[in-house]
Amino acid sequence: MELYIVSDIGGTQIRVAAHDSSTLSCIDQKKIATQRQGQYPIQRLINLIRDISKDHILKAISIGVPGFLDLEKGIILNCPNIPGWVNFPIRQILTEQFNVPIYINNDANLAALGEWKYGIGQGHKNLLYLTISTGIGSGVIINNQLLLGTKGLAGELGHTTLEPNGPLCGCGQYGHLEALASGTAIKAYVEAQIESGRSSTLSGSINFQGNDIFLAARNGDSLAFEAYQRAGKYLGMAIANFLHIFNPSIVILGGGVTQVGDLLFKPTESSLRDHVIRPEYIDMLQLTKSSLGDDVGLQGALAYLVLNNGNQII
Amino acid sequence: MELYIVSDIGGTQIRVAAHDSSTLSCIDQKKIATQRQGQYPIQRLINLIRDISKDHILKAISIGVPGFLDLEKGIILNCPNIPGWVNFPIRQILTEQFNVPIYINNDANLAALGEWKYGIGQGHKNLLYLTISTGIGSGVIINNQLLLGTKGLAGELGHTTLEPNGPLCGCGQYGHLEALASGTAIKAYVEAQIESGRSSTLSGSINFQGNDIFLAARNGDSLAFEAYQRAGKYLGMAIANFLHIFNPSIVILGGGVTQVGDLLFKPTESSLRDHVIRPEYIDMLQLTKSSLGDDVGLQGALAYLVLNNGNQII
Repeated sequence: MELYIVSDIGGTQIRVAAHDSSTLSCIDQKKIATQRQGQYPIQRLINLIRDISKDHILKAISIGVPGFLDLEKGIILNCPNIPGWVNFPIRQILTEQFNVPIYINNDANLAALGEWKYGIGQGHKNLLYLTISTGIGSGVIINNQLLLGTKGLAGELGHTTLEPNGPLCGCGQYGHLEALASGTAIKAYVEAQIESGRSSTLSGSINFQGNDIFLAARNGDSLAFEAYQRAGKYLGMAIANFLHIFNPSIVILGGGVTQVGDLLFKPTESSLRDHVIRPEYIDMLQLTKSSLGDDVGLQGALAYLVLNNGNQII
Repeated sequence: MELYIVSDIGGTQIRVAAHDSSTLSCIDQKKIATQRQGQYPIQRLINLIRDISKDHILKAISIGVPGFLDLEKGIILNCPNIPGWVNFPIRQILTEQFNVPIYINNDANLAALGEWKYGIGQGHKNLLYLTISTGIGSGVIINNQLLLGTKGLAGELGHTTLEPNGPLCGCGQYGHLEALASGTAIKAYVEAQIESGRSSTLSGSINFQGNDIFLAARNGDSLAFEAYQRAGKYLGMAIANFLHIFNPSIVILGGGVTQVGDLLFKPTESSLRDHVIRPEYIDMLQLTKSSLGDDVGLQGALAYLVLNNGNQII
């Protein structure tokens, strides 16, 4: 069988799926830990692709990477979760290994494309996708095209300043959306408040995680509840900015943090309504959860491959 | 002669130009005050178009309006400088009068298009235009297309929050770029500082204007100088946001306030450098003044007409 291989590389897992290149149906999926002592992530990826495609003919590979890419050169400029991938020539390495077309892009860009082509974004010409997770990633579809910009560095909506004197962001700047509304930001806020003497049921626990904050909020912990309210306030404010900038017809929220549901969505919607400058921006707007869930990255990589292989330039 | 008529409607003046529809050369320009006792602006516009096109055959009209438009319906939703134009069916009125294709769009969108097609933005696929004036307008070209969004309400970059607790914006929200870096914002800052007891050479003057603040800054008034530094700081911060969002290859600044030159440009550039998250965003970036000056609106309206009339959908 002739195969398209798609991959979603995360800080924790590398996922790979094999699709029949004529029907596009998925024939196999595999995953593996990204890091393991003594093995480079790229070698683990290559092994996984070899493994899933053995006994078949490989036609093309498409990969989503959680980092900054130079799309022209096919280089990963920086990938915060994989420390060795700085100015990393991933396309060249994979081309040498497999000698087929290699498509790479930012994982959140591909997620936007996945929702637009196969998910809840179908039929929307202007779409905004945000993934609220450890960080905040994003992808934008404008007029049925993926927003890439001059060098492919567009769509970094998590790295826009909302509070110039706000908390430090992972990128080194202050008060970015990511530093105010990501999972990391929610945890940092709870920690800082406890540190400053606020009481919380989380005070005693060592190294609590996002799920602990969620459970605490659900059980009436006012600090935990407030942490989500605060994240939602900033997220709604940021989405209002993005509506004024892009005027999309759908905003899709994905990523682990959105699993808390109304705890985040309610303050987000309320803040969004408070911050839009004209009702037309939200009159027909769909604000919704991701429909593809964990598969959004793989589906996006498939969409990207199909669109590029068919010479429809995205 | 067969004519294309283009118009740039401002709060103060309505400008109209007539172009030979085959060579596109400008054969005449006229202007008139927007408001006059007892005459509606729309009647003044109609008279001006009749006047400039008499003895010729009118082929199409293209108009830039400083307000929010419903492009599908051809309606001005709201035009802050022309109080009567609320839900105003401008396309229908002009169609009934002239019976030719009528193109209308936001003036800053058309200015972006003008710079892209006829000005310093030629050859740039991804372009950002900001006009710093009474307010802050903007237009964005992505992949050689004007960013319009679902209803044509995209590109309102002046209405993005930079300081949630910042000053009141003309739109009713707080801390928007427009409320921090427009001509109005600069004046309001100087006034507020004087009010709170800061000394300035402007303290004594009644109802000083932008040009007075510029002259005071040039003559060493520290408050006036600081007002431009502050505006530039926010403008640079906002442009960094927009680079992360759009990754353009050129950012063009127009509007009256940019005539102060380095007084605004230096702090803007410095703040921009401080706020970008990766050097690739500014490595090859051109940050420049508008090249078409006062004609940018008319040139943009012409570009819009030509692109639409040629069925190239923008």
